[in-house]
Amino acid sequence: MTSAAAPLFETLTVVGPGLIGASVLHRGRRDGTLAKKLIAVDINPTFRERVRQLGIADEVTDDLAGAAAQSDCVMLCVPVGAMGEVAATAIPAMKPGAILTDTGSTKVSVIDAIRPSLRPDVPYVPAHPMAGTEYSGPDAGFATLFDNRWCLLTPLDGMPDTATTAITTLWELCGARTRTMTPEHHDRVCAIVSHLPHLLAFTICGTADDLADETRSEVLEFAASGFRDFTRIASSDPIMWRDIFLSNREAVLEMLSRFLEDAQAMARAIRWGDSDYIVDRIERGRAIRRSLLENRQA
Amino acid sequence: MTSAAAPLFETLTVVGPGLIGASVLHRGRRDGTLAKKLIAVDINPTFRERVRQLGIADEVTDDLAGAAAQSDCVMLCVPVGAMGEVAATAIPAMKPGAILTDTGSTKVSVIDAIRPSLRPDVPYVPAHPMAGTEYSGPDAGFATLFDNRWCLLTPLDGMPDTATTAITTLWELCGARTRTMTPEHHDRVCAIVSHLPHLLAFTICGTADDLADETRSEVLEFAASGFRDFTRIASSDPIMWRDIFLSNREAVLEMLSRFLEDAQAMARAIRWGDSDYIVDRIERGRAIRRSLLENRQA
Ligand SMILES: NC(=O)c1ccc[n+]([C@@H]2O[C@H](COP(=O)([O-])OP(=O)(O)OC[C@H]3O[C@@H](n4cnc5c(N)ncnc54)[C@H](OP(=O)(O)O)[C@@H]3O)[C@@H](O)[C@H]2O)c1
Ligand SMILES: NC(=O)c1ccc[n+]([C@@H]2O[C@H](COP(=O)([O-])OP(=O)(O)OC[C@H]3O[C@@H](n4cnc5c(N)ncnc54)[C@H](OP(=O)(O)O)[C@@H]3O)[C@@H](O)[C@H]2O)c1
Repeated sequence: MTSAAAPLFETLTVVGPGLIGASVLHRGRRDGTLAKKLIAVDINPTFRERVRQLGIADEVTDDLAGAAAQSDCVMLCVPVGAMGEVAATAIPAMKPGAILTDTGSTKVSVIDAIRPSLRPDVPYVPAHPMAGTEYSGPDAGFATLFDNRWCLLTPLDGMPDTATTAITTLWELCGARTRTMTPEHHDRVCAIVSHLPHLLAFTICGTADDLADETRSEVLEFAASGFRDFTRIASSDPIMWRDIFLSNREAVLEMLSRFLEDAQAMARAIRWGDSDYIVDRIERGRAIRRSLLENRQA
Repeated sequence: MTSAAAPLFETLTVVGPGLIGASVLHRGRRDGTLAKKLIAVDINPTFRERVRQLGIADEVTDDLAGAAAQSDCVMLCVPVGAMGEVAATAIPAMKPGAILTDTGSTKVSVIDAIRPSLRPDVPYVPAHPMAGTEYSGPDAGFATLFDNRWCLLTPLDGMPDTATTAITTLWELCGARTRTMTPEHHDRVCAIVSHLPHLLAFTICGTADDLADETRSEVLEFAASGFRDFTRIASSDPIMWRDIFLSNREAVLEMLSRFLEDAQAMARAIRWGDSDYIVDRIERGRAIRRSLLENRQA
C-alpha cells in the first residue's frame, strides 16, 4: 500500500475551461488526485492564454481530437448548445474504454445531442454539478466551487457501472455529494429549482427596464433587497442561459405555466382582497424556507 | 456652544417596537441624539417584556394615549393595516405641535387611513425607511439597520416645513439618506423594487410546494442558488406582506400585469426558439446589475 492513492485517471481533458471547467482543473491541480496529466482545450485564444497564465493545466491546446486521443477521460464543460458538436469531434478520436462525461445544466437535450456520436467502446456518463456563481470564464474558476454541493449523475441504460463509478469518484474528489436520477427527472427538478428562478429574475429586470424614464432611474436608485437579489441572479451569462432555456424547453415551459397560473391567482386574491389566500401562499414560502434551513441548504 | 448637540426631541414614542421600531429605539439608546426619553408602546405583553429586557426604552407601556400625550414625536411602526386605528387613538391625545410620523412600506393607503384623524395642530410626516431583514419582532432590531439606506419621505401639502425637517433629521441621525417624493410615486417605485419581487418569491415557493411529492422533496434537497435566494426573500412576515399587497393594490397589480406580459413573451420566445429575444432580455438584466454596481447599491 502506498501512502498516497494513485490519481483517478492518467490523463483528463477538460473541454471549455470556463467557470466549471477551470474549477475542475484548479481542484485537480491542488491535490493531484484527479489525473497525472491535465489538458485544457478551448477554441478561444484569449482563454487559452489565461489558462496558461493560471497554470492549472499541463497542456493547453485548441486541438480537441489530439487531446481526446491521449485521455482516459474527456469532460465537456462547454455551453449546452455546443455539446453535440464538440462531442462529434472528440468521440471518434478517443481511446477504447476512455470515458466521456459532460457538465451541462440540462440533461435530456445534451444526451440527445451527443447520442448520435457515441461509440460502443466509449462509455458516456452525463453529470451536472449544481454549483456556480454569476461569473464565467477561466478566471471565475476556483478549487472549492463544488465543496458540499450536489452533483447529479444521469447514467444511461447499458453503460458499464465502472464508468459511472469513476465519474462519481471524480466528483467526490472535487468535494461534491453525488446522486443519480433519470435525465427526465433531472430536467424537471432543475426547471423549478434553477431555470424558472433565473427566468423570473431576467424578466423582472426587463420589466423594470421598460418603465418610464423617471421611475426607471429611481428603480436603480432605490433598489431594495428583493430587487437587488434578483439582479444578482440575473447577471449570469446570457448564452449559457439562452441555451438552458431552449434545451430544457418542455420542463421550463411547464413550470413557467404553473407559476403563471399561481401568479394570476395571487393577482386575483389581491384584487378582491382575499386575505386568507394571500397569507396561505406566503406561509408556504416560509415553510419551504424552514425545511431548507433544516436541510442546511440555505 | 455645548460640546454635544441637544437631542432632537424631548420625548419620542415608538408604537410597535418590532424590527423597524426596535431598531429606532436601539439607535436612540446608542447615542442619545434622538430624544431625552424613549417610550415604547405595544399591545403584545410578550413584546413589551422583551423590550424591557432589551433595555432600549425608558418606558414601556400599552397605554398609547398616555404615551402620546407626553411626546413631541409619535412614530407609528405597526403593520400597514393597523396604522389607521392606531393613529385614531394617538392623535387626539397628542400635544399641539407634536409631530406624527409612520414607517409604513406603502404610503397612499396609510395616508388615506390616517387622514380622517388628523388635527390642524398636529403635523404628520409620512416616511418609509428602505431597510429590513427577513426577521420581525423586537429581537430583530439593531442600531445600524438604517446605515446608508434610503428613507423616503412623502410630505403632504400644507404641512409645516419644520415638521418635515425634523423627521428628515431623525432619519439622518439613524444613519439613513433621505429623499422626498409624492406618495403615489413612492408606491409605484416600491411596487417594482420591493413588492413585486416579494410577490414572485412567495409565488414560486407555492408553485414548488404544489408539485407532486417526489419532485417536491427533491426541490428541497437540491435547491440551487436561484431558488434558495427566493426562499430567503419569501421568509418575510406574512401579515406585513399581506397588508402591503392589499394596501398598494393598484401599483402592485399594474407592475404584476406588466411582468406577466413579459413572462408570457419569454415563454413564447422559448417555445419558438427566438434566441435573439431571449438574449436581449437577459442582457437587460445584466445592464441593470451593472448600473446598480456603479451606484454601489449591490
Ligand atoms: N455556471 C453555472 O452555474 C453552471 C453550473 C453547472 C453546470 N454548468 C454547465 O457547465 C457548462 C459550462 O458552464 P460555465 O459556467 O463553466 O461556462 P463558461 O464559464 O462560459 O465556460 C464555457 C467555456 O467553454 C468554451 N467553449 C464554448 N464553445 C466551445 C467550443 N465549441 N469548443 C471549445 N470550447 C468552447 C468557452 O469559450 P468561449 O467563451 O470563447 O466560447 C468557455 O471557455 C455549461 O454546459 C453549463 O450549462 C454551469
Ligand atoms: N420589515 C421591513 O422590511 C420593513 C421595512 C420598512 C418599513 N416597514 C414597515 O414598518 C412597519 C413595521 O414593520 P416591522 O417589520 O418592524 O414589523 P414587526 O417586526 O412585525 O413589528 C410590528 C410591531 O407592531 C406591533 N403591533 C401590531 N399591531 C399593533 C397595534 N394595533 N398596536 C400596537 N402595536 C401593534 C406588533 O406587535 P404584534 O406582533 O403583537 O401585533 C409588533 O411589535 C410596517 O408598517 C412595515 O410595513 C417594514
